[in-house]
Amino acid sequence: MNLTNQQFRLAHRPTGLPDADTWELTEEPVVDPGEGQIAVEVIYASLDPAMRTWLNEGESYVPPVNPGEVMRALGVGRVIASRAPDFEEGDHVTGLFGIQRYAVLPVKGVAKVSEQLAPLPSYLNALGIPGMTAYFGLLDIGRPQEGQTAVVSAAAGAVGSLAGQIARLNGCRVVGVAGGAEKCRIVTEEYRFDAAIDYKAGEVSRELRGVCLDGIDIFFDNVGGPILEAALRNLARGARVVLCGAVSQYNEGAMAGPRNYMNLLVKRARMEGFVVFDYASRYPEAAREIAGWMSAGDLRSREHVVDGFETFPETLLMLYSGQNTGKLVLGVARC
Amino acid sequence: MNLTNQQFRLAHRPTGLPDADTWELTEEPVVDPGEGQIAVEVIYASLDPAMRTWLNEGESYVPPVNPGEVMRALGVGRVIASRAPDFEEGDHVTGLFGIQRYAVLPVKGVAKVSEQLAPLPSYLNALGIPGMTAYFGLLDIGRPQEGQTAVVSAAAGAVGSLAGQIARLNGCRVVGVAGGAEKCRIVTEEYRFDAAIDYKAGEVSRELRGVCLDGIDIFFDNVGGPILEAALRNLARGARVVLCGAVSQYNEGAMAGPRNYMNLLVKRARMEGFVVFDYASRYPEAAREIAGWMSAGDLRSREHVVDGFETFPETLLMLYSGQNTGKLVLGVARC
Repeated sequence: MNLTNQQFRLAHRPTGLPDADTWELTEEPVVDPGEGQIAVEVIYASLDPAMRTWLNEGESYVPPVNPGEVMRALGVGRVIASRAPDFEEGDHVTGLFGIQRYAVLPVKGVAKVSEQLAPLPSYLNALGIPGMTAYFGLLDIGRPQEGQTAVVSAAAGAVGSLAGQIARLNGCRVVGVAGGAEKCRIVTEEYRFDAAIDYKAGEVSRELRGVCLDGIDIFFDNVGGPILEAALRNLARGARVVLCGAVSQYNEGAMAGPRNYMNLLVKRARMEGFVVFDYASRYPEAAREIAGWMSAGDLRSREHVVDGFETFPETLLMLYSGQNTGKLVLGVARC
Repeated sequence: MNLTNQQFRLAHRPTGLPDADTWELTEEPVVDPGEGQIAVEVIYASLDPAMRTWLNEGESYVPPVNPGEVMRALGVGRVIASRAPDFEEGDHVTGLFGIQRYAVLPVKGVAKVSEQLAPLPSYLNALGIPGMTAYFGLLDIGRPQEGQTAVVSAAAGAVGSLAGQIARLNGCRVVGVAGGAEKCRIVTEEYRFDAAIDYKAGEVSRELRGVCLDGIDIFFDNVGGPILEAALRNLARGARVVLCGAVSQYNEGAMAGPRNYMNLLVKRARMEGFVVFDYASRYPEAAREIAGWMSAGDLRSREHVVDGFETFPETLLMLYSGQNTGKLVLGVARC
């Protein structure tokens, strides 16, 4: 194919935040696809908070990325060569392409997407894994009921903004916790949450008490740490705490546990985890409903695209300093 | 009535373990019961780990005991005077009598018990609140399924020993965690758990891995702290962690949260609290089933009776140093 691939590979497992030693930028020729394979030019790569957890040794809900391997990432791209039925040159596709310019891979786990139906980056957001995560976490684990109060942390982030909107569309009063006045404005104005709390400006527990007079029925948590504790302090009876992530803890040496977890007893509440991949057979159902909300103007899929493949190491860090508003996407090539 | 009552009242809220300054021993005449009331001579008083939490200020699942008040406690006693229908002098009764020799109170919340059906102390154990706690916590929150593995902490304690036996009677393989060889012997020989782990003798997490090869399906927790963390490390997919107590933490300045709570996500598991009083309408159903198991010899209700009303302050501390085996009961009067 006479094309040169560029790849970010894991060089050394980081302690704390990934830094210059974490990644190695490598080059190699793009090989021809084998039987049943396609070659894809990556257009967008998804950058996700959970990436940090994949860099740690040991079992998690997915195997770790090992030193020498191309960093795992979801992406959207264009088929440039196909030896697989149903895939043709020029098709737009989404799949686990990794942080690289080209991916040659079997088509299992690759899906075609249509730029006519929705902008390509939204297939990494509301119509992709963040959307599925928000949908099944909020509905299956959170079990919203009309008139209940749902609180979402990292509310301006990809999953948080979608979870809150889905809670609203299921009849909940929705409060977001986000960092900074601008994010709070986006949460209430663009995502139409009922209220937003700026965790940088005040004491979250007291603010929650002020806006959740009957307590929190659903807490959809993406961050862990002190915000989780503030929510536990304000649970309503029978509350559900949906464990989706713990981004405030991923780069800490040791995780901190919620010191007031026994509020779950006092409030007859539960804290429950889930992994979105378990719901794969139901993705089409979720995508149909989310696409419907999007086209009706009821749900906003906002992406924060940073262009430049080579910016990957710094761009990734935006997730942990809270600089992105909306789903963080790396622009790898022009579409 | 010309009788003198003695009472242990809260003098000062303790920090850490209750000590000599915590209690005040008071005397006063026993008054005659008013209309709808009975006077009870307390025979046994129940000493429970949760008592420590009642000494703290602030909301919990029950109001705190306030300085000057008689210490709250369940008890079994004998009616010595009655102005309430259905209660006669000589009846044995159970209710919230407090740490005192005589209680004069309305009959709401007082139930008659029969020494013919079961020994009086068992009404503070398998047929009382510990039994109800074990029964509803294990069955309603733990949801055992035939062939699953249940692990119980404080397995030689009142609620733990009952929860494990109820798990066994519902088809589970049952592992107990207890402190010391003698308690472990009681757990396997008297309560017929399948295995017992001595947390003082080894690393609990590794021991659990050795005896729970397919992971823990139900963890019924009475202790919190490092044993909770060890259990979270060894959960099976879809596990249920039943939050019943956190006795290892009650006397600590600040509670510690389980640092590895995100294992709940990895294992698609839940941690859920409950308060036994919510099940009050179903106590008779539970008591009937437990009494059936007892009379068939399938369930053992073991009490550790320490005689001597005046020993209350020291006897209570046995719960926090793990000196009792079975339900700790204070013998207040001869029956």
